[in-house]
Amino acid sequence: MFDTNIVVIGNVLTPPEWRRTAGSNTLVANFRVASTARRLDRETGRWVDGNHLRVRVNCWRRLAEGVASSVAVGDPVVVAGRLYTRDWTDSEGNLRTTYEMEAVSVGHDLSRGRARFFRTRAAA
Amino acid sequence: MFDTNIVVIGNVLTPPEWRRTAGSNTLVANFRVASTARRLDRETGRWVDGNHLRVRVNCWRRLAEGVASSVAVGDPVVVAGRLYTRDWTDSEGNLRTTYEMEAVSVGHDLSRGRARFFRTRAAA
Amino acid sequence: MFDTNIVVIGNVLTPPEWRRTAGSNTLVANFRVASTARRLDRETGRWVDGNHLRVRVNCWRRLAEGVASSVAVGDPVVVAGRLYTRDWTDSEGNLRTTYEMEAVSVGHDLSRGRARFFRTRAAA
Amino acid sequence: MFDTNIVVIGNVLTPPEWRRTAGSNTLVANFRVASTARRLDRETGRWVDGNHLRVRVNCWRRLAEGVASSVAVGDPVVVAGRLYTRDWTDSEGNLRTTYEMEAVSVGHDLSRGRARFFRTRAAA
Repeated sequence: MFDTNIVVIGNVLTPPEWRRTAGSNTLVANFRVASTARRLDRETGRWVDGNHLRVRVNCWRRLAEGVASSVAVGDPVVVAGRLYTRDWTDSEGNLRTTYEMEAVSVGHDLSRGRARFFRTRAAA
Repeated sequence: MFDTNIVVIGNVLTPPEWRRTAGSNTLVANFRVASTARRLDRETGRWVDGNHLRVRVNCWRRLAEGVASSVAVGDPVVVAGRLYTRDWTDSEGNLRTTYEMEAVSVGHDLSRGRARFFRTRAAA
Repeated sequence: MFDTNIVVIGNVLTPPEWRRTAGSNTLVANFRVASTARRLDRETGRWVDGNHLRVRVNCWRRLAEGVASSVAVGDPVVVAGRLYTRDWTDSEGNLRTTYEMEAVSVGHDLSRGRARFFRTRAAA
Repeated sequence: MFDTNIVVIGNVLTPPEWRRTAGSNTLVANFRVASTARRLDRETGRWVDGNHLRVRVNCWRRLAEGVASSVAVGDPVVVAGRLYTRDWTDSEGNLRTTYEMEAVSVGHDLSRGRARFFRTRAAA
């Protein structure tokens, strides 16, 4: 079977946090993103709010660097990645399920602003 | 902003249930689907299990009919649709969040079997 | 960079053809699919035809078997896979470009019919 | 049926060109994007080039503004949108088919650089 591909177009809800993993010292950053779909109401002919989505986005290595240095709360973004379920046990012993995504690409949404981009020099 | 498009390739976890909505008498069916990604391990060169996903799938109108009459637990399926967050309050007053998808298309995955298909006669 | 993921919901245009590759004797099937988007016209409030798409779909191994034994012209299908460009030279020496997709999953669209599915017995 | 959703992660091949449509004076920008998938070779254990894709991207209204003012040749980008086929007749009367995408969002890929973003002030 295959990865569950997903694209979220929305706004950054929380400031990106980053850390290095204990074992491999790999950089990882995460933030939450929110999206509200818009749909055309057939009866009124007006655009109205549709479904909402909020999800945590995990970014690794170079993407973590780019996100940590470039993304702030409220920024409009496009996030492409894979959705998965994480199962855990809370402090009272209850089984809980969280949905998260691992991003393969994050960018500022140019339909809602302008950007100056500084490309990373490729490693030799 | 836009709908959050998602495609899940996995197996049906629960028997599809269906009902009609109170107000508009619209047919709606739902089931749960599970997917496990496979990834090539760089060190061993073998395919191993990657991320897991379980999610509830809601189907409306004609898709609900097709799903209710064709899909059973364990069937391998491909599901295309939109992901969203549903917020609710549990019996103890705690705010809870669930992720669900509204399917636009569901089909049996022909990489894992064969199918005989009977097309619905289009309404006059 | 990453594969270009794509999902097509449409109808089968051509009967699936299949063959075995010369070197590895791998089964491959292909067919063409057509899709027409529908969009809500803001001025009339009616649904009208939007963009069209026609594309060749290549299926490998078990998916080729399932498709070759189950899919016929006119069938409504959902196809998930990856889009790519193929460059070639025609008989007059002109450089030509074709777009094709490699499917990871194909299924009959249950919003437009019912199906009986026979699962392949997993290899021991 | 539904729009054919697609996400391309790649590099800008041509400088964005923009114009206003004759009738409605709507701003539209276009550029070409190229993407090369990477895949893990099972025999050597190394990452090698996989499929290629080149496609023209059309952007409308605010997205056209953002793209025209922010995107240059060579920039790494993530593009989410819809794929469609455009049929036309060349100067010798031959029927030709082109594939294009209409973008709903374009962003600089933060896995390959850093960005400063300036949000458009929302219209009153």
